Amino acid sequence: MKLWQKNNQTMDSFIESFETKGDLVLDQQLTKYDVYGSIAQVKMLEKIGIVTKKEEETAITGLLEILALHKKGKFILEQGDEDIHTKIENFLTEKYGEVGKKIHTGRSRNDQVLTDLRLYTKEHLLFIWEELLELISSFYAFSKQYEFVPMPGYTHMQKAMPSSVGMWGASFTESLLDSLYQLKTAHELNDKSPLGSAAGYGAPLHLDREYTAKLLGFENVQINSLYCQNSRGKIESLILATLSTILQDINKFATDVLLFTTAEFNYFTVSNDLCTGSSIMPQKGNVDLAELLRSKVHIVTGNYLQIIGISGNLPSGYNRDVQDTKKPLMESLELTLDCIRVANILIHKLHPQEDKMKQALTPEIYATHSVLQLVGQGMPFREAYQIIKEKLDDNLTHNPEQTIKQSHHLGGTGNLSLGRYFAIVKHEKERYNKEMGKFTAAITSLLTCTQHETEKLAINC
Amino acid sequence: MKLWQKNNQTMDSFIESFETKGDLVLDQQLTKYDVYGSIAQVKMLEKIGIVTKKEEETAITGLLEILALHKKGKFILEQGDEDIHTKIENFLTEKYGEVGKKIHTGRSRNDQVLTDLRLYTKEHLLFIWEELLELISSFYAFSKQYEFVPMPGYTHMQKAMPSSVGMWGASFTESLLDSLYQLKTAHELNDKSPLGSAAGYGAPLHLDREYTAKLLGFENVQINSLYCQNSRGKIESLILATLSTILQDINKFATDVLLFTTAEFNYFTVSNDLCTGSSIMPQKGNVDLAELLRSKVHIVTGNYLQIIGISGNLPSGYNRDVQDTKKPLMESLELTLDCIRVANILIHKLHPQEDKMKQALTPEIYATHSVLQLVGQGMPFREAYQIIKEKLDDNLTHNPEQTIKQSHHLGGTGNLSLGRYFAIVKHEKERYNKEMGKFTAAITSLLTCTQHETEKLAINC
Amino acid sequence: MKLWQKNNQTMDSFIESFETKGDLVLDQQLTKYDVYGSIAQVKMLEKIGIVTKKEEETAITGLLEILALHKKGKFILEQGDEDIHTKIENFLTEKYGEVGKKIHTGRSRNDQVLTDLRLYTKEHLLFIWEELLELISSFYAFSKQYEFVPMPGYTHMQKAMPSSVGMWGASFTESLLDSLYQLKTAHELNDKSPLGSAAGYGAPLHLDREYTAKLLGFENVQINSLYCQNSRGKIESLILATLSTILQDINKFATDVLLFTTAEFNYFTVSNDLCTGSSIMPQKGNVDLAELLRSKVHIVTGNYLQIIGISGNLPSGYNRDVQDTKKPLMESLELTLDCIRVANILIHKLHPQEDKMKQALTPEIYATHSVLQLVGQGMPFREAYQIIKEKLDDNLTHNPEQTIKQSHHLGGTGNLSLGRYFAIVKHEKERYNKEMGKFTAAITSLLTCTQHETEKLAINC
Amino acid sequence: MKLWQKNNQTMDSFIESFETKGDLVLDQQLTKYDVYGSIAQVKMLEKIGIVTKKEEETAITGLLEILALHKKGKFILEQGDEDIHTKIENFLTEKYGEVGKKIHTGRSRNDQVLTDLRLYTKEHLLFIWEELLELISSFYAFSKQYEFVPMPGYTHMQKAMPSSVGMWGASFTESLLDSLYQLKTAHELNDKSPLGSAAGYGAPLHLDREYTAKLLGFENVQINSLYCQNSRGKIESLILATLSTILQDINKFATDVLLFTTAEFNYFTVSNDLCTGSSIMPQKGNVDLAELLRSKVHIVTGNYLQIIGISGNLPSGYNRDVQDTKKPLMESLELTLDCIRVANILIHKLHPQEDKMKQALTPEIYATHSVLQLVGQGMPFREAYQIIKEKLDDNLTHNPEQTIKQSHHLGGTGNLSLGRYFAIVKHEKERYNKEMGKFTAAITSLLTCTQHETEKLAINC
Repeated sequence: MKLWQKNNQTMDSFIESFETKGDLVLDQQLTKYDVYGSIAQVKMLEKIGIVTKKEEETAITGLLEILALHKKGKFILEQGDEDIHTKIENFLTEKYGEVGKKIHTGRSRNDQVLTDLRLYTKEHLLFIWEELLELISSFYAFSKQYEFVPMPGYTHMQKAMPSSVGMWGASFTESLLDSLYQLKTAHELNDKSPLGSAAGYGAPLHLDREYTAKLLGFENVQINSLYCQNSRGKIESLILATLSTILQDINKFATDVLLFTTAEFNYFTVSNDLCTGSSIMPQKGNVDLAELLRSKVHIVTGNYLQIIGISGNLPSGYNRDVQDTKKPLMESLELTLDCIRVANILIHKLHPQEDKMKQALTPEIYATHSVLQLVGQGMPFREAYQIIKEKLDDNLTHNPEQTIKQSHHLGGTGNLSLGRYFAIVKHEKERYNKEMGKFTAAITSLLTCTQHETEKLAINC
Repeated sequence: MKLWQKNNQTMDSFIESFETKGDLVLDQQLTKYDVYGSIAQVKMLEKIGIVTKKEEETAITGLLEILALHKKGKFILEQGDEDIHTKIENFLTEKYGEVGKKIHTGRSRNDQVLTDLRLYTKEHLLFIWEELLELISSFYAFSKQYEFVPMPGYTHMQKAMPSSVGMWGASFTESLLDSLYQLKTAHELNDKSPLGSAAGYGAPLHLDREYTAKLLGFENVQINSLYCQNSRGKIESLILATLSTILQDINKFATDVLLFTTAEFNYFTVSNDLCTGSSIMPQKGNVDLAELLRSKVHIVTGNYLQIIGISGNLPSGYNRDVQDTKKPLMESLELTLDCIRVANILIHKLHPQEDKMKQALTPEIYATHSVLQLVGQGMPFREAYQIIKEKLDDNLTHNPEQTIKQSHHLGGTGNLSLGRYFAIVKHEKERYNKEMGKFTAAITSLLTCTQHETEKLAINC
Repeated sequence: MKLWQKNNQTMDSFIESFETKGDLVLDQQLTKYDVYGSIAQVKMLEKIGIVTKKEEETAITGLLEILALHKKGKFILEQGDEDIHTKIENFLTEKYGEVGKKIHTGRSRNDQVLTDLRLYTKEHLLFIWEELLELISSFYAFSKQYEFVPMPGYTHMQKAMPSSVGMWGASFTESLLDSLYQLKTAHELNDKSPLGSAAGYGAPLHLDREYTAKLLGFENVQINSLYCQNSRGKIESLILATLSTILQDINKFATDVLLFTTAEFNYFTVSNDLCTGSSIMPQKGNVDLAELLRSKVHIVTGNYLQIIGISGNLPSGYNRDVQDTKKPLMESLELTLDCIRVANILIHKLHPQEDKMKQALTPEIYATHSVLQLVGQGMPFREAYQIIKEKLDDNLTHNPEQTIKQSHHLGGTGNLSLGRYFAIVKHEKERYNKEMGKFTAAITSLLTCTQHETEKLAINC
Repeated sequence: MKLWQKNNQTMDSFIESFETKGDLVLDQQLTKYDVYGSIAQVKMLEKIGIVTKKEEETAITGLLEILALHKKGKFILEQGDEDIHTKIENFLTEKYGEVGKKIHTGRSRNDQVLTDLRLYTKEHLLFIWEELLELISSFYAFSKQYEFVPMPGYTHMQKAMPSSVGMWGASFTESLLDSLYQLKTAHELNDKSPLGSAAGYGAPLHLDREYTAKLLGFENVQINSLYCQNSRGKIESLILATLSTILQDINKFATDVLLFTTAEFNYFTVSNDLCTGSSIMPQKGNVDLAELLRSKVHIVTGNYLQIIGISGNLPSGYNRDVQDTKKPLMESLELTLDCIRVANILIHKLHPQEDKMKQALTPEIYATHSVLQLVGQGMPFREAYQIIKEKLDDNLTHNPEQTIKQSHHLGGTGNLSLGRYFAIVKHEKERYNKEMGKFTAAITSLLTCTQHETEKLAINC
């Protein structure tokens, strides 16, 4: 039964299915966070005198039972259930009585689902943060290992100047560090508790919003009750734009791998256990993996646009359209997490073919170096350029290893400054550990202060 | 003549037009920044001994002349010019001789245009930052002025609970502060000098990249030469996602204004001088302004997609496709700046119709308050809810002013905590002044150390 | 086991899951179509002498068994299965022997999955076609019923000129007819058989592609083998743009319903059984349905962009990236079908509040009519306009019913020409029946010529 | 002065600029079509007795003068002008008196600008249609010329099976023919006159909408007055989705050209006069052209999204937001036209390196052919596949020319069926000529029936 139904009211089942079908699958994944939010809420209600200490304990026992059932796959939303919030309230009321009727005091499903999504997002951003640091470390190690291995550098898909495997690898290291920087901002904007904003206009109660925020491990309260609702769509869109920066990095990595593993380039090989075959052509060994990494940024971009489109041109206050932003948000977070892990596997199984790359450093690629040799002898650059342009057929060959070391300015092939990245990664890992630690501690505390009950239920929260 | 042309080479003029047409208009706007970059480059070349002190002075004189001509509208790119970089080099070589042939030493148009765009973006982000603080202040003042003016609050476009004009205004204050927070991150990621990365692979010279970065007022060097090029598209996309958050805020504001100024709602009026009429219907006075504010987030979203699409699935290194990211970037920055200013005008000319809003607080909007009264008397929430649901026809009227003050939890209508915003705005203005000050000082210094020449040219840089 | 695996080859299970996870769910829905395609293929292989008549019969028996199992939910893809094509081939080989090893002759999974998707799309486009005609008929009936009921017409969200409920309803009738016109084009472009194009380069066999096309009910063969693969992404994108036109119509309808059912407008009411309540506010009755209809065009737009993004900047030939276009395609087809049905329910439960609309025809809305009265007396339009503009405070009231009948030019409120739509709908229903009939006949024939086996299996195809 | 201004009304000039700035540039390009629409309107007003024959002649004289001035670049919109419609009415009134005040009778700027845009779009779609047929003919000729030139075929960016230059070229021929098919549908949906729908609700006059439609060369009237306005955004979005299909074809062509002209592949060369150089690297010869062709589909996709976003979630009737759809529409039409022309130049200057491609047909590419040889000897496909998979190191070499002729099924390398395309192109050219002829005849007739006046003005319409 819906929370708002009168006894005599019915609803077309096709309509009901249209309104909730895909949403229940998502709500299932929110169960854990909804329980967290409800525990925090009931603790706060006790603090301000709306439920008794005893009721609080009863409610928490019930909520922990739900959590335990959920972990065993026995708390399943089905067609007819309106949403996770309703199912939880109904379960409590049926099994634990009165207190079930009280847990919704001072909140609305509007702030409740938003709280769930913020917690879901927070946890996933922390996972992404961690995996991203791993991936960055892998690229760092890769570029360290092949720091001075010569490799042609391309512009316009044509050979341009000598480069190195180290430069190529380090380009992703630095790029992903930028993405990480943005990730932290998205994390901070998400790290605000909307709980207590109710339907978007607060409630005439002494709700202690700072207390629930702290219990749930949020850094701040999102103050304005109306803004809490109005931020739906906006904060999500920014999170997806953030994930997109990571996936853009991975897209470029995958695109390079696919080009550089063609038989024609043959600069890298990928371990056989990552390749797949063809149903018709026996000779094939394809790096499908990289193709499926390459495509994902476009999925998340499409999801971003869904969120922007859905929430655009809508007036203030909750509009149910935003229910449809849950899927693009949650899907994108999971997808990005997977992609980072897969990219990390790929970089570990990618093997430079050093000889092939050296062979590909054909004479004309040194033309600019020849120009700059003349410049070194005092000739104006443009003159030297025109002279070399006329003499391209001459043999301009240089020594590859020496050549790449000559570019020893900051960020040149001879001076990749990898140590700088190492220092940042080290610092960022500490920062991450601190952030993750705070969140884990809050949630642990939220659950363990009720240790008594959990023992009774024999569940491990 | 193109920098790379041999004497005998020609190019189809239709093709030439296709390749540069729209781009020259954009390059025109980059003239100033290209001059800055060239001055920094020539100073650095002098520092590392590639040009003499005298050549440096000659080059700077020439570059300042270009700046002066540009400001008078007399340095105009025309069909046949390849780009601003070429035009400047050619101008210098023709009028100032040898040194013109040297200024390109150690750079490529690839890092040159990227430097221009970073400077253009930096300056515009700073302008946006400033105007955004103004707009936030206006919303703050608006919500302060009408802090306790009752107004219906809506969900699903239906009356939900009593709200206030103060809460509505403050929702934008807090929302824009979040957008500002993100803006600063985008600013920092943009605030890195790519100069010296050349074509994307550095150069075998002692380029002092930290020196040019400092001269141009950049906070950091973007280290990896290849990443400099690979970041094209990525950093821009993040900047546009950031602008989008601001325009999403403005979109909601405009959407609300359009709904609340309908004759049917009539909660606000807009000063007559902001309204436009109809060519056929004499009675009309439309807030077209708000419609044109509402549409802009969609322009920037489309521009975002262009940038993501263009740079997706492309291998590492410069690809000319990215030329087409200049327009969506530059257009979006200008558009956002305009929108913030216009929104600021609109909020100043928006007049709450307090009586209308009070009349609109019809009894059923107090239903939740009636429920919570019963809760206050000890009844479980869900029971109270069902009781009130049965009695909706009874007169539930409350006193509007009193009611909104009852929600005195943090972020409720009775406790908007406007002071917190005020404190942040104050702090952010200081932060902005410092940031803008540093940039202005750097550019001023870049130009004034050559005061001698500027006097000769009678120009004011 | 994968079709292409050597015995000793293994694959990381996380990678395997990344590559197929979401895809298996989609493949499950393609089972039916994959069986169709395989039956057609085996018949053709018999025709050109590659399998014997007996082998053909065995294979078809096996394929029909798969179909029967699938319908009972007993042919389920699981983690470890690579795709539906592999599972079917393996099943046949294990249970029916040799012929299982032959059914892949002359095809690749590349053309196989494309054939499946074309059939899936064709069937869904036909369903959409049918439901769309129903919805158009409903809007026609609605506008016929309320043809001359006066209603304010709006521009810029402000009252503009008198309109009618009939004009409002008929605007959707005509709009959806345009969408239907486009739908037929998308259908025709999809209605081409790619079977026999193999991996994208054909095969050195006498494949009779026209025969398989006919067996599967395709109107044409998609000739060029490479284009078959290159069209992936392209044809899908056009189908989604087509679905978008339908959802844009529905978006406007839903947006209007939400505005016109606000308490402030109150021009329409929606039957109670379509409304939903609030968990906190007892008085609420929201048309959530319309909000969830409103949002869907944005989902499909995002899906469109995923498809465009994924397939952009990719070279010719199959690239596995396109696997990720299956979900946005299939989801969009289902979503659109649902939305059309829901919109049809909504229009039937939408009740004009005729009195409210008449009251809303306040005097100033007749200003243009007053102007044109003066024009009728010989005054130039712009003069009359200025005169009325000065006299807006005078009472300009006209009779609403008479007024709307005065606009009797084609497409005016007095001459909606509803009969024209009726004639088109009638004609289109015949066209649809013919098209659906052809497809049904082909599939029925594909399955019943093997009636003998179906009887043995006691299945109803 | 604005048409709707009272004498005492002023408007902030920054606001005015915000509202019209970019729009005036677009309106300038609409001048011609606005004159056409006004001539048709005034003829119709004479027909229904609102202006006299003499007034009609005066008005047309004035309108033709505007056309003549416009062609000489002397009818320029400037800041302060509201739009082209206003400027034309004001010009007529000032120079030709009374009749200027009458030409707006029975229309609004809402239907006027829509008429202009439909005419602009129609003319550009016809241009695109023509150029598209040229491009298709070029691809046809290219594939005819190299019909049996062997070339490796790729999947997953790895060599897959032997293909041919003919198959590659023909894939674009067939793809563009599909795009053409869609183009005609978009053309038909655009080919409807909205003139007379006024502000979106018609007018109480005997407007003869079928007469103005015929005068302007429209195939049909868009009947429902409200739908005329509601279709803004929708029809445009479909047109852009159509242009996108063309640009997707061109994107793939350009992507292939860029891959196949790398030094590593070297399958094609591009004539030197289409290549551009580098400012720093003397050896470079890049096919920038193809990069700038590759990027354009993303511009149009972004524009598509702008249109969908702007018009989404908006209620029925004109909303000024749609002003911002003019730019993405007009820009996309011009861009597509340019791209088709440039692609046509590129295909003519693309030279297959037949020897390189033959060398690239390394033994393993024939693996599938070896499998199918065994199949020809009676072995089941999957068995043959496994046998060849074990023997990949054996020399599987086949004769390239013979091999590609063996795939003689419809659409295989040995049977490209180019004649079918030729027949369609021939038919489509006739169809185009007829369509273009009708439009030209209508516009010529619209202008020449007033030959008397044109002679006086000595202008050539």
